[in-house]
Amino acid sequence: MNFASDNWAGAAPEILDAIARVNEGHAPSYGADEWTKDAEEEFCELFEKDCAAYFVATGGAANGLALSVIGPPYGMVLCQEESHVQMDECAGPEFFSGGAKLVPVAGPAGKLTPEAVKETLAGFPHRPPHGAPPSILSLTQGTECGTVYSVAEVRALCDTAHDADMSVHMDGARFANAIVATGASPADMTWRAGVDVLCFGGTKNGCIAAEAVVFFDKNKAKDFEFRRKRAGHLLSKMRFVAAQFEAYLEDGTWIKLASRANAMAKKLSDGLAAIDGVEISYPTQINEVFAVFPEGAAERLRKQGAVFYPWVTPGDPAGGRMQRLICSFNTTEEEVNAFLDATREAVK
Amino acid sequence: MNFASDNWAGAAPEILDAIARVNEGHAPSYGADEWTKDAEEEFCELFEKDCAAYFVATGGAANGLALSVIGPPYGMVLCQEESHVQMDECAGPEFFSGGAKLVPVAGPAGKLTPEAVKETLAGFPHRPPHGAPPSILSLTQGTECGTVYSVAEVRALCDTAHDADMSVHMDGARFANAIVATGASPADMTWRAGVDVLCFGGTKNGCIAAEAVVFFDKNKAKDFEFRRKRAGHLLSKMRFVAAQFEAYLEDGTWIKLASRANAMAKKLSDGLAAIDGVEISYPTQINEVFAVFPEGAAERLRKQGAVFYPWVTPGDPAGGRMQRLICSFNTTEEEVNAFLDATREAVK
Amino acid sequence: MNFASDNWAGAAPEILDAIARVNEGHAPSYGADEWTKDAEEEFCELFEKDCAAYFVATGGAANGLALSVIGPPYGMVLCQEESHVQMDECAGPEFFSGGAKLVPVAGPAGKLTPEAVKETLAGFPHRPPHGAPPSILSLTQGTECGTVYSVAEVRALCDTAHDADMSVHMDGARFANAIVATGASPADMTWRAGVDVLCFGGTKNGCIAAEAVVFFDKNKAKDFEFRRKRAGHLLSKMRFVAAQFEAYLEDGTWIKLASRANAMAKKLSDGLAAIDGVEISYPTQINEVFAVFPEGAAERLRKQGAVFYPWVTPGDPAGGRMQRLICSFNTTEEEVNAFLDATREAVK
Amino acid sequence: MNFASDNWAGAAPEILDAIARVNEGHAPSYGADEWTKDAEEEFCELFEKDCAAYFVATGGAANGLALSVIGPPYGMVLCQEESHVQMDECAGPEFFSGGAKLVPVAGPAGKLTPEAVKETLAGFPHRPPHGAPPSILSLTQGTECGTVYSVAEVRALCDTAHDADMSVHMDGARFANAIVATGASPADMTWRAGVDVLCFGGTKNGCIAAEAVVFFDKNKAKDFEFRRKRAGHLLSKMRFVAAQFEAYLEDGTWIKLASRANAMAKKLSDGLAAIDGVEISYPTQINEVFAVFPEGAAERLRKQGAVFYPWVTPGDPAGGRMQRLICSFNTTEEEVNAFLDATREAVK
Repeated sequence: MNFASDNWAGAAPEILDAIARVNEGHAPSYGADEWTKDAEEEFCELFEKDCAAYFVATGGAANGLALSVIGPPYGMVLCQEESHVQMDECAGPEFFSGGAKLVPVAGPAGKLTPEAVKETLAGFPHRPPHGAPPSILSLTQGTECGTVYSVAEVRALCDTAHDADMSVHMDGARFANAIVATGASPADMTWRAGVDVLCFGGTKNGCIAAEAVVFFDKNKAKDFEFRRKRAGHLLSKMRFVAAQFEAYLEDGTWIKLASRANAMAKKLSDGLAAIDGVEISYPTQINEVFAVFPEGAAERLRKQGAVFYPWVTPGDPAGGRMQRLICSFNTTEEEVNAFLDATREAVK
Repeated sequence: MNFASDNWAGAAPEILDAIARVNEGHAPSYGADEWTKDAEEEFCELFEKDCAAYFVATGGAANGLALSVIGPPYGMVLCQEESHVQMDECAGPEFFSGGAKLVPVAGPAGKLTPEAVKETLAGFPHRPPHGAPPSILSLTQGTECGTVYSVAEVRALCDTAHDADMSVHMDGARFANAIVATGASPADMTWRAGVDVLCFGGTKNGCIAAEAVVFFDKNKAKDFEFRRKRAGHLLSKMRFVAAQFEAYLEDGTWIKLASRANAMAKKLSDGLAAIDGVEISYPTQINEVFAVFPEGAAERLRKQGAVFYPWVTPGDPAGGRMQRLICSFNTTEEEVNAFLDATREAVK
Repeated sequence: MNFASDNWAGAAPEILDAIARVNEGHAPSYGADEWTKDAEEEFCELFEKDCAAYFVATGGAANGLALSVIGPPYGMVLCQEESHVQMDECAGPEFFSGGAKLVPVAGPAGKLTPEAVKETLAGFPHRPPHGAPPSILSLTQGTECGTVYSVAEVRALCDTAHDADMSVHMDGARFANAIVATGASPADMTWRAGVDVLCFGGTKNGCIAAEAVVFFDKNKAKDFEFRRKRAGHLLSKMRFVAAQFEAYLEDGTWIKLASRANAMAKKLSDGLAAIDGVEISYPTQINEVFAVFPEGAAERLRKQGAVFYPWVTPGDPAGGRMQRLICSFNTTEEEVNAFLDATREAVK
Repeated sequence: MNFASDNWAGAAPEILDAIARVNEGHAPSYGADEWTKDAEEEFCELFEKDCAAYFVATGGAANGLALSVIGPPYGMVLCQEESHVQMDECAGPEFFSGGAKLVPVAGPAGKLTPEAVKETLAGFPHRPPHGAPPSILSLTQGTECGTVYSVAEVRALCDTAHDADMSVHMDGARFANAIVATGASPADMTWRAGVDVLCFGGTKNGCIAAEAVVFFDKNKAKDFEFRRKRAGHLLSKMRFVAAQFEAYLEDGTWIKLASRANAMAKKLSDGLAAIDGVEISYPTQINEVFAVFPEGAAERLRKQGAVFYPWVTPGDPAGGRMQRLICSFNTTEEEVNAFLDATREAVK
């Protein structure tokens, strides 16, 4: 009954196999190998566009580097107040960018709305160079609260951003889960809607350490390579990251893995919702379930070995009592059922 | 009828005289001169404490350097959402600190409250090293909204900060006006209440360019000199800054200048409040008046030559219709009266 | 006949096996797992000291983070002019530290000498805060030129550094090769000689991506965790790095792998030295051979499929004609023999 | 007998007068005033080009900001090993740029040569993104060693830089002295020769605190304003800096002041050269004299009240025995004669 996080899971077998497969012989280092080129190519196919894809090992690196490339060091990055870039990267975007200002924007269930973005911008008088200029809008797809943006919602936010001369960054640590949830094509969900750069996550969905930064306009990517290198994020044996992506994207593996995680979360959420006294806090759209349990129940569940964490954020509507449960690519029905049974006991 | 800003005023005659006076002969550069030592000494007397005082030319430098010295590059700096460090320094604190995260906190009339600070902190789960650790609480005294903290309020905020392991920075660009408004002693208003570092402003109150960064614990100041130097803020002919401070502090000149500015603002505020249709937005406690004029009146006043600016901020309760009027050390009663007369006409 | 670099090699089988082994089940993320704790413990044993060991995926990250922790953002880092931190990290140390100044020091065969360090320091007048204060001496063990420092040489350099109030950083990307070459114990080669922080490399010696930053005084490590996190170098599935180190350190695997690489380089070097017209540029002490071939020979060797690169650096005594050949843990005698045969042909 | 530095001098009377003159009444702050616009205009006239001129208070700020605008944060800045940016700004360029790598280049008497620049570049293999890319060549005119570049020399260096895709920065803290020494026009000495950005100093030549950053291609200046602001270098009462420049440039005041300083240095240098046992170290081309005195003589001169400092740098050919004597705009013949008399006594 482990619902701690999708990064508590190991790697999918396909990923491990791929790593073993590329281990043979010598290969050019630092991404000059064939596997890396192939994987970059696959991103172009996946997104139906000649884009620039770069690989790194962590989501924090992907986000920080992406933001540093598309905005100046003195710009404002608007993001949802519960987003990973704001809450969970120890001021990483500020570091990578050389001092950008992150501006938290409130919004329902982890999401930004065009209205909230406009209202926030309206609060900053346009007085260059006194105020930091708005430079980037950062979206998370799927969000930290387990919700997703529709393609139309992404487009509306991108339009709002571009109207205000801001570029759009999408943190896609759970992009696979969002694609499964919406059924949209990767292209529709990103560049066709106006996204400038996507951080495409693999790690939370069955990879060991594989994140891609995808620039849909190659010209905007030009100093990424230098920034990645100086930040120590250019892996010398890059083939081992590329191999993960090849296996991940091949035959829809990424979709398969995310589908399982989403389905288990749905089952868990539906089960919990049916239990008296348990409240589901946000719509369960991807692989995360947020719930408030009756007094003492969470504690009792933990004593029985269930692993999950409280969710505390600026936007928490439940005053610190909300719990987050995450399913991953290898969560089983048995685990979900066991947890539901235990919960029914615990709330008695 | 110029109420644009207190930095639109020139220098007080005492300041200009002092600059001419120190011009004779050679003097050691970079602050090794006698005038600088004397001025540093005067700060110790003024604050009744053996403190470390460093001089720079701008408030942005003072704030940025001070924050960079008392907190780590990955810390969170909590500040009022309308504060200068957040709104008006083009991400300067982020730059000087090497990437600190500024966290805007809402509060009434430009002020922070212990409750709001605690609530903000509660929204950030304690999960080092994922979240940036809270490191500094930054207060502005007097505030950007023309209000002041009482000594008791400062103490309560400092206690809140220290309880959460945060240091306290006070942006005192209008410290003189706040001292005049409260009648408190500089020591009571700062270190005795728990302030760790004060940016003591001279520029807005009749100096040309003179700001002091005062560390009340000398041990906490140890790398200020290196940081000031590398940021290009160690003036070679420092005696010209020191001279401003000597004149400023001598015989209570700073109090005299701020008293005039505050008094004129009071007169202006009282006058405006008595005019039908004009609303005073915040209590006028220092040299700034915030008012909402009837539709079209501000425009008509500007046409007659009055100079003042709209006030737009995240916390603006008047939807962008608020106007800010600032008095300075050389604002005259005639100017105030003329403006009040003009306003009475404009609102008809 | 691939002598391009030790990072062109894949992973040793022991490493791959370990990765597969830790894949089972859920484990706390971000290094809170048991494997990571065990691996940290092994470093304490290996170095016979209660030290702090942190894991990252690249040598550039290890170096940059280590330097940023032990010196201020405005300090001078003295390093050999051909060192990796100076030549090959795209100004990474400057980035991680927030602006430190790297000062290249010339020296024979990639090595620093106490005399050269003292002479360099003497060229910088002591005038704080005008000059950046000397803060760190960075050594590379084994060096970029395939040479090693004896324990006595390391001690002499550390003494020189400490006398000048500088901390000592050791870049040990090829630490294993240096230990094999000198037969010294890890403790003697580092903290007992005065090294403050070691970047212990695994990647170039058979790991996929595994580097450890080892602080011998735990108190000096205190903000490493925050700095690693904000730089995106805290891997969420850390067990996969820890597993590499467990396998690497177990039963002397790291020594075995480096021994093979060193032995092959020795054989290659001896063979080349015996060929008329080939000059060995530096003593071959670890797994790197530097040689100057007769006009046209390198070209001919490349045409026959040999892979190796010219070595160009500030200290190159051969005017750009030097070639670097690197052996790795899986270089075979057959490869070496084939290359020697081919060279004998090529120089005819 | 004060030859400590040209920043030990106060301000020229013309400068003080101008400051008093602009003090009347209110003026827009932050450089939106008429004096600032006029002064910017005067720079365009002086340089016979529609350029962008920005004012700051220190040379360190001017250099750091200029370098940060024309090069990326990961670029290499080649500079003479004794230059101010390398030796005297406490790693300021590294700070402003966000981590650029300064590469010291040796050269005679404080000067760079195209050969030395090419040789340095040749030592850095072209392997993006591993090495930091060469981005800026920084010249100092006149140099820290009291010498000047001819227009032809500047042009040759600029050509070398541009051929290597580097921009050219000129540190002109003593630009006035160099113009007087060479008789060249400001335009010929800068943009016509290929200089991209000039830091035009006023402070060392009779101003209080006035430095201009002049971009000869306005398009390259575009983010200067944001960078200046966030670094705390946009003075609110900018008219007081603009006033200094107006007075400085009016009627050739700057040339008059520098002529006096240069002439006094020439007289001092000639006088010293004629004294047995005194050696002039570098040609005296501007207002700085470098000399080696017989054993004990410098000490005896200091005891008699002469003020001057030893000159220690990486390139010091005299092993730390060289002394630097600087004349300023207000050095008198009497002072020079007194020093020469005292020297004649001291060497006996």
